[in-house]
Amino acid sequence: MFTYQRRVEFAETDAAGMVHFSVFFRYMEEAEHALWRSVGLNIWESGPPSQGFGETGSVSWPRISARFDFKAPLKFQDEFEVRTEMGNVSRSTIQWNHTLMRGDTIIGSGSVTVVCVKKLPGGGIKSTEIEPAIISRLRLALSA
Amino acid sequence: MFTYQRRVEFAETDAAGMVHFSVFFRYMEEAEHALWRSVGLNIWESGPPSQGFGETGSVSWPRISARFDFKAPLKFQDEFEVRTEMGNVSRSTIQWNHTLMRGDTIIGSGSVTVVCVKKLPGGGIKSTEIEPAIISRLRLALSA
Amino acid sequence: MFTYQRRVEFAETDAAGMVHFSVFFRYMEEAEHALWRSVGLNIWESGPPSQGFGETGSVSWPRISARFDFKAPLKFQDEFEVRTEMGNVSRSTIQWNHTLMRGDTIIGSGSVTVVCVKKLPGGGIKSTEIEPAIISRLRLALSA
Amino acid sequence: MFTYQRRVEFAETDAAGMVHFSVFFRYMEEAEHALWRSVGLNIWESGPPSQGFGETGSVSWPRISARFDFKAPLKFQDEFEVRTEMGNVSRSTIQWNHTLMRGDTIIGSGSVTVVCVKKLPGGGIKSTEIEPAIISRLRLALSA
Repeated sequence: MFTYQRRVEFAETDAAGMVHFSVFFRYMEEAEHALWRSVGLNIWESGPPSQGFGETGSVSWPRISARFDFKAPLKFQDEFEVRTEMGNVSRSTIQWNHTLMRGDTIIGSGSVTVVCVKKLPGGGIKSTEIEPAIISRLRLALSA
Repeated sequence: MFTYQRRVEFAETDAAGMVHFSVFFRYMEEAEHALWRSVGLNIWESGPPSQGFGETGSVSWPRISARFDFKAPLKFQDEFEVRTEMGNVSRSTIQWNHTLMRGDTIIGSGSVTVVCVKKLPGGGIKSTEIEPAIISRLRLALSA
Repeated sequence: MFTYQRRVEFAETDAAGMVHFSVFFRYMEEAEHALWRSVGLNIWESGPPSQGFGETGSVSWPRISARFDFKAPLKFQDEFEVRTEMGNVSRSTIQWNHTLMRGDTIIGSGSVTVVCVKKLPGGGIKSTEIEPAIISRLRLALSA
Repeated sequence: MFTYQRRVEFAETDAAGMVHFSVFFRYMEEAEHALWRSVGLNIWESGPPSQGFGETGSVSWPRISARFDFKAPLKFQDEFEVRTEMGNVSRSTIQWNHTLMRGDTIIGSGSVTVVCVKKLPGGGIKSTEIEPAIISRLRLALSA
């Protein structure tokens, strides 16, 4: 399990006085990116160099599915943590499972499935095999 | 089915050149709120008056579950529509199902389940029965 | 003067019950982009085609200065309009002046200065002369 | 001077590949709130208790003016700091001046003026004198 610490910022709240539900998806993504960095990887440069892809690498990781179940609200300045685990891994996809905790209170849990894609000459993208070395390295973050 | 029209704004895109995945949850909520307005309802004033709730009404509609499956990207200035249908309705919850289309292209689909809650004197909230008149009225938006 | 109509969405509010102050800068940008579209221009394709710039065109319009003075709050579902005028125009910059109104109430006013830049081979950018035809066309939006 | 450390998150970037200009206003606010916390204050509870204000305290700090001048872009995962100083202080307002740095590179600088208001019985707000003890305490954060 990988743990990511965070505090609620004011711009993340809404007029109901709690964090807007869409922001939890940003929290899950932040944890995923922090996990990559924690083992010396950079999701933004995760392939051989290429031109024109946005990323400096030649592969990208768009999200294909995301869900979150909300149990308790988070409020401005609350400190919480995201606990991240790796779910199903296929040839080209990784499912990340996240639980948000404020102290001992479960705020909610969700999962995000990402797919590794490479850019095609015509501008399209195509799912591609995730390098086994990347999966091995990412698993290191979870056993720390 | 209720239809909500929208255009992608620049602040909604990310460095991969497409709409950030968390923004699709805002699009689904916008469609839901527009649906309420389309039949003369206001989700923000959907109960007898109260003090201190944020909302001017005495009930509120927090989200308890949300998911989205991504099929194709949306880019800056793309015009799209959200097609909204009512899924399961229980005593205190409504599931909203949404499909996003850009022309004939399916961008993705998702659902958001909301619960009707009332405020308790101590500051807490408790799920409460949805007024049947509200359900009836909301259904009108779908048959238009 | 160009006029852009908008309604406050829930995700734009904060726990003080009003639109978060940073969102007004998004409103000003939305109005600017709508102004371009209103005269058949596309800020995202505003130059000869190029590769690798993000935009499909070879020039881009980063913001170099932005300010806003807040007079009255906007709340969830408020309808308002942005009234946009062109301020100082130099060889490579345009200053856009915006006033936000909710009915007869002034919500606030601000300005955003943008610079026209072209991409250099090494990846940098350099300010470049704005095509006079673009300025002429943009002025049309203001006299409508 | 107070220093706030931050890293750029993916959702903060836009399709031009850099942090969206509106996000810099959120960065300035985050630094301001962190400054309050650094001296044991909580901007959200900065007055005698009240009901119905959103905040648990009886005063609030809306922003009345904000500006930012952009010098260099920030990109995904960039680490930067916000250096915050107190500008003009009047009876009921504080001006916060912020400079953003990525290493030795100036990203930009801006200022935000906030006003201390109290809630009136009818639902309105009125500017009110800032408690001198708060100003003294905030100044401690700057001399650390």
